Amino acid sequence: NHIIVTGFGTSGQEAVHELLARGTDPREIVVIDGSEKALELAEAQGCNVLCGDSTRDRTLKDVAIHRARSMIVSAGRDDTSILITLTARHLAPRLPISIVVRNEDNELPARQAGATTVINPVSFAGLLLAGSTSGRHIADYMADLAASGGRVKLNERTVLPEEVGGPLSAIGTGLGLRIYRGDRPIGFWEEEAKRLQSGDVIIEITEGNGLPEPADGD
Amino acid sequence: NHIIVTGFGTSGQEAVHELLARGTDPREIVVIDGSEKALELAEAQGCNVLCGDSTRDRTLKDVAIHRARSMIVSAGRDDTSILITLTARHLAPRLPISIVVRNEDNELPARQAGATTVINPVSFAGLLLAGSTSGRHIADYMADLAASGGRVKLNERTVLPEEVGGPLSAIGTGLGLRIYRGDRPIGFWEEEAKRLQSGDVIIEITEGNGLPEPADGD
Ligand SMILES: [Ca+2]
Ligand SMILES: [Ca+2]
Repeated sequence: NHIIVTGFGTSGQEAVHELLARGTDPREIVVIDGSEKALELAEAQGCNVLCGDSTRDRTLKDVAIHRARSMIVSAGRDDTSILITLTARHLAPRLPISIVVRNEDNELPARQAGATTVINPVSFAGLLLAGSTSGRHIADYMADLAASGGRVKLNERTVLPEEVGGPLSAIGTGLGLRIYRGDRPIGFWEEEAKRLQSGDVIIEITEGNGLPEPADGD
Repeated sequence: NHIIVTGFGTSGQEAVHELLARGTDPREIVVIDGSEKALELAEAQGCNVLCGDSTRDRTLKDVAIHRARSMIVSAGRDDTSILITLTARHLAPRLPISIVVRNEDNELPARQAGATTVINPVSFAGLLLAGSTSGRHIADYMADLAASGGRVKLNERTVLPEEVGGPLSAIGTGLGLRIYRGDRPIGFWEEEAKRLQSGDVIIEITEGNGLPEPADGD
């Protein structure tokens, strides 16, 4: 029930930093990288480390991928990251895998390789840049939402038994934004959001943990 | 009353792409770059272009920076972007300037140089990666929120006269998330959010324009 992080460059390091900020025990994180130097950084934060090539079945089996709860792939090169994703998906059909890609053309192949979540930092930056021209607080709000620190955070959870039958607007844990009923998204403004069903997944904004935001979050 | 985009690499291109998706008239966009080849791409989209060095006063004066409504700085190198920001801030003290930086250490200098909004794509990717391990829809929801297409978008606006005195939860245009009263943020859960004041700035989620989302937005 651990989190595997393959590639400990800047994205991988930022991800681990935020996982720790969210309260993840570093002993539940296993970092794989080909560079001993990168691994020293991970080890200094209390993470487990393995020096190896994550595109090999053997390496992923060595970190018990079949028992992992999620995997982060940020190998620095899109081709390498996609090959790691393919390998991991083959070994662990239901594992949530998040991958970073740098080139927009590789977003679809990354999904086809089996990634659950595909993140393109450059696309995202473009969206935030454009959004910032129509409001000076937009990018900061987005950064606050993404980080567990600060004033707010975006949270995903399953509906509670006592919430079933009531509206999304009445949940007590935060501000309800969206329901996933199966894979179908339902917005807060839609008729179906007035009656939560068992098994619904809720996206909500909750209060952050109040810790200082990252520098780009304010 | 135009938008200046200095640097038409991947981030700058993505930003212009999203500005056009938001309905910005390309004739209201002026792209500055040192490369004629990059400018051909911008010109093909209907933008105005200028080949030049944005770190020079002269260049920024040539695009009438004093009349611009906002500026996007993504020169590809942090040192260049920060120098452009300093130059622009000197010429246009109140212009909203959004800058992309790649190195976390440069976020603070970018703010000190006068940037209104500082975006670090790598930090952001790390936040999204970490968030995605606690919910498979988190990163997709964030991408939808950042883009004008898709099902939702994040919007910033001034309070309407008819909303003054009422609660944030009663606004009719979307789901109210945060108020800025002066520079002070007020969350949806706070007592002060129960009574909007004249001059408040509201952050809200509104329905998107329904156009297809970017590939990373699902
Ligand atoms: Ca936060
Ligand atoms: Ca959207």
